[in-house]
Amino acid sequence: MAKDSKEQSFIKEITPRSEDFSQWYIDIVRKAELADYTSMKGCMVIKPYGYAIWENMRDQMDKRIKDTGHMNAYFPLFVPESLLNKEAEHIAGFAPEVAWVTQGGNEKLEERLAIRPTSEAIICSIYADWVHSWRDLPILINQWANVVRWEKVTRLFLRTTEFQWQEGHTCHRTHEEAVEETVKMLAVYKEYAENVLAMPAHAGIKTSNERFPGAQETYCIEALMSDGKALQAGTSHDLGQHFSKMFNILFEDQDNERKYVWQTSWGTSMRMLGGVIMTHGDENGLILPPKIAPYQVVIIPIFKAANKEEVCAKAQEVAATLKAAGVRVFLDDREQYSPGWKYNQWEMKGVPLRLELGPKDIEKQTVFSARRDTRVKAAIPMAQLTTAVPELLNTIQNDMLQKAINFREEMTTKVDNFEDFQKTIETKRGFVVAGWDGTTETELKIKELTKATIRFIPMDENFKPIPAPEGTKCVLTGEPAKHLVYFARSY
Amino acid sequence: MAKDSKEQSFIKEITPRSEDFSQWYIDIVRKAELADYTSMKGCMVIKPYGYAIWENMRDQMDKRIKDTGHMNAYFPLFVPESLLNKEAEHIAGFAPEVAWVTQGGNEKLEERLAIRPTSEAIICSIYADWVHSWRDLPILINQWANVVRWEKVTRLFLRTTEFQWQEGHTCHRTHEEAVEETVKMLAVYKEYAENVLAMPAHAGIKTSNERFPGAQETYCIEALMSDGKALQAGTSHDLGQHFSKMFNILFEDQDNERKYVWQTSWGTSMRMLGGVIMTHGDENGLILPPKIAPYQVVIIPIFKAANKEEVCAKAQEVAATLKAAGVRVFLDDREQYSPGWKYNQWEMKGVPLRLELGPKDIEKQTVFSARRDTRVKAAIPMAQLTTAVPELLNTIQNDMLQKAINFREEMTTKVDNFEDFQKTIETKRGFVVAGWDGTTETELKIKELTKATIRFIPMDENFKPIPAPEGTKCVLTGEPAKHLVYFARSY
Repeated sequence: MAKDSKEQSFIKEITPRSEDFSQWYIDIVRKAELADYTSMKGCMVIKPYGYAIWENMRDQMDKRIKDTGHMNAYFPLFVPESLLNKEAEHIAGFAPEVAWVTQGGNEKLEERLAIRPTSEAIICSIYADWVHSWRDLPILINQWANVVRWEKVTRLFLRTTEFQWQEGHTCHRTHEEAVEETVKMLAVYKEYAENVLAMPAHAGIKTSNERFPGAQETYCIEALMSDGKALQAGTSHDLGQHFSKMFNILFEDQDNERKYVWQTSWGTSMRMLGGVIMTHGDENGLILPPKIAPYQVVIIPIFKAANKEEVCAKAQEVAATLKAAGVRVFLDDREQYSPGWKYNQWEMKGVPLRLELGPKDIEKQTVFSARRDTRVKAAIPMAQLTTAVPELLNTIQNDMLQKAINFREEMTTKVDNFEDFQKTIETKRGFVVAGWDGTTETELKIKELTKATIRFIPMDENFKPIPAPEGTKCVLTGEPAKHLVYFARSY
Repeated sequence: MAKDSKEQSFIKEITPRSEDFSQWYIDIVRKAELADYTSMKGCMVIKPYGYAIWENMRDQMDKRIKDTGHMNAYFPLFVPESLLNKEAEHIAGFAPEVAWVTQGGNEKLEERLAIRPTSEAIICSIYADWVHSWRDLPILINQWANVVRWEKVTRLFLRTTEFQWQEGHTCHRTHEEAVEETVKMLAVYKEYAENVLAMPAHAGIKTSNERFPGAQETYCIEALMSDGKALQAGTSHDLGQHFSKMFNILFEDQDNERKYVWQTSWGTSMRMLGGVIMTHGDENGLILPPKIAPYQVVIIPIFKAANKEEVCAKAQEVAATLKAAGVRVFLDDREQYSPGWKYNQWEMKGVPLRLELGPKDIEKQTVFSARRDTRVKAAIPMAQLTTAVPELLNTIQNDMLQKAINFREEMTTKVDNFEDFQKTIETKRGFVVAGWDGTTETELKIKELTKATIRFIPMDENFKPIPAPEGTKCVLTGEPAKHLVYFARSY
């Protein structure tokens, strides 16, 4: 009785997901001790447990970026206003959300400095000095950095004034090479989202209206959250020569002609962590994919005063065995909390696998396991721990991805008239696949009527937009459709 | 002939160290492609090779910070002016070098935001919400972040407007615990400087005049550069209750009384990389300790058209063998450069060990090795590569430290009169050990006359300042000396 009511009170602190998804999300972020708001409006503090997840995410992304031939570098936080102004579309896109430094020490600055909202301008101004000959190409550089965008409405991890991200910036000799780089990194992002975060992601092309300011083409990965809204989880831009022409990034080619380089940029951010929460979380809190969980396994010894020493010694042995096998383990032998309280706390924090160990388990030479994702429980023989636990973690990782794929499939609806479109977006949500006549006007009208936007245009194996099948009509105008596209409400 | 002149021209690009140390330093930073200035005054770009060194430095420091029980977190870049103003000494110390944001998007801000010059103020304001009971203590958190100080005179890595660092911020129940933490991290810094950077460091106490603004006591590590000037390479502060009282960080203790926490903060930065350059570099460029070198070994195959295939295949085999043994290897098989040119380039970049491989070496089943630090050359039997190379790297690491220790000893002079003091500082430089009467007045007068400052007061095994031996006189005033202290000109 006492135990039950304590468990309930712990859970009660989260708003039910079905009742208020936004509040449920905030409750998890705070109760799982991932992050919190600060007195500095729009800025969050990332708490140690949240930051440990981010470190795992970052390291695995960093490895992929390096494995594809890039090196990290670091460029200034500040962008002089004159540099930011060079690319007209770019500044028009970012001006409303730039934070400006106007004073340094006691000196009023002659020129305002933007805090980078993204680094194309400052990096291009530096690349102009680095590139002289075709021998200097390609430049394949990534940066991990904080950026600032003065957002009016903020949401922990998803949209904050300051956030952490990685931004790749590359220069190439030909447009073909630049396109190859753009789609290569898009593929890295998709593979990473699926294999590391267990978050299925569609790769596609943005409409011209949703394109990055200054880009020639923007590719994206789009995931579906458990409330049926889409999340843009990464973008990769073919910048063409827009920036190289404005910043004079020229090289002498093998034919002795001076040419402008072709550029790309691509980025992912902490919002991916928001995506993880909204893809996998449930009524009891966070559910972390094993590959990014700070602790993959929590061990909870169950003891009374009489057998405490024996049980705790065995629990330490189990912890040491698993650690030696490369598993990230936390042994929770705190005495001031009951096992039930600990179960709830670690469920809230999303630890993928719980191992319980009491005198009866020791007698039977087993540990009792409980999966966070499915809540399936099973005994594991002690002798098999070092193989069974890593295998189980692997299974959890795969099952979480499959579950999310299944959910996405259920939540993808093809419609051929606007009434169904509206009804689906209003009641079922998810991705709505429909014909679009290819005009920005139609795109904006649909957004106005339904709050849904075109998340992406599907592409073929050559990364070209797929034309709509013959005879397909635009879902709004009835005109011939140019593409079948994916609509959704989004974050 | 041709080869020689090419080698010379490469070297000629560095200013001789004896002629102009500052220019020699800048030349190395640029020629070794570590970093460069940008159009953004006082801000540098850290190039891929320089950033790879920093990543190795950061990872090894991060491991030590975690191994001593800390976790990483992340706090906002911005500090509202009212928060920064709370601790009077603190704002007085930092106000002249703060960059201020006054505009966000199109909106003029009601309150100016400082870009963190250090994070005590913002972090303390957040800790006030986190700490309630003695059970919440200690708080042991570190942050890796960029900070901004509006410096008038800048120098690559050593003093730039924006720089990368780590800053630990901890809260404790008692002053004893806080002091223990302060000196523990000081010891970590000293061990790291010596064992990772091969840079010997004295640990000591700062005078009240050199104390961190707002601290009760500042401890530091001080290294000696090859021009005889000192470099403060890390600091650890006992903050007492100065900040907890201003920010109301209170906890209920076991005796049910509400008490202010005791705090520490400690930091090291990219300037340590400047220290590495100035400790180990020589007339041919950078010399990197193996533990932080992006490439510990560079392999240069020596071939003609006729035997190119055979030699390159063998070089690849050697590279693979060493990589498998955990050595960071770069195989430089570029054809557009001569071996001599490559030798010079990799010497400039400080790679600890060069392996040359030509047809004769293959015949003898050896590779020819050349150490960067001592220039000692020796043949290594191929069969012994996986043991001999790691051993040699280890020897290089140790020898570099020992050489720097010997240099420091030679460059440490004890004086007992002001004439000798002035002469030593002027001509020999290095550390000058002398009696000091303990007054700020004397300290400042000596600085005015000699440009030398008190780098640290030596401490005993209990981390207390060591009193001067009976009868010691102050080197300036002739009054009884309070301590024998270490003076030097410094960066």
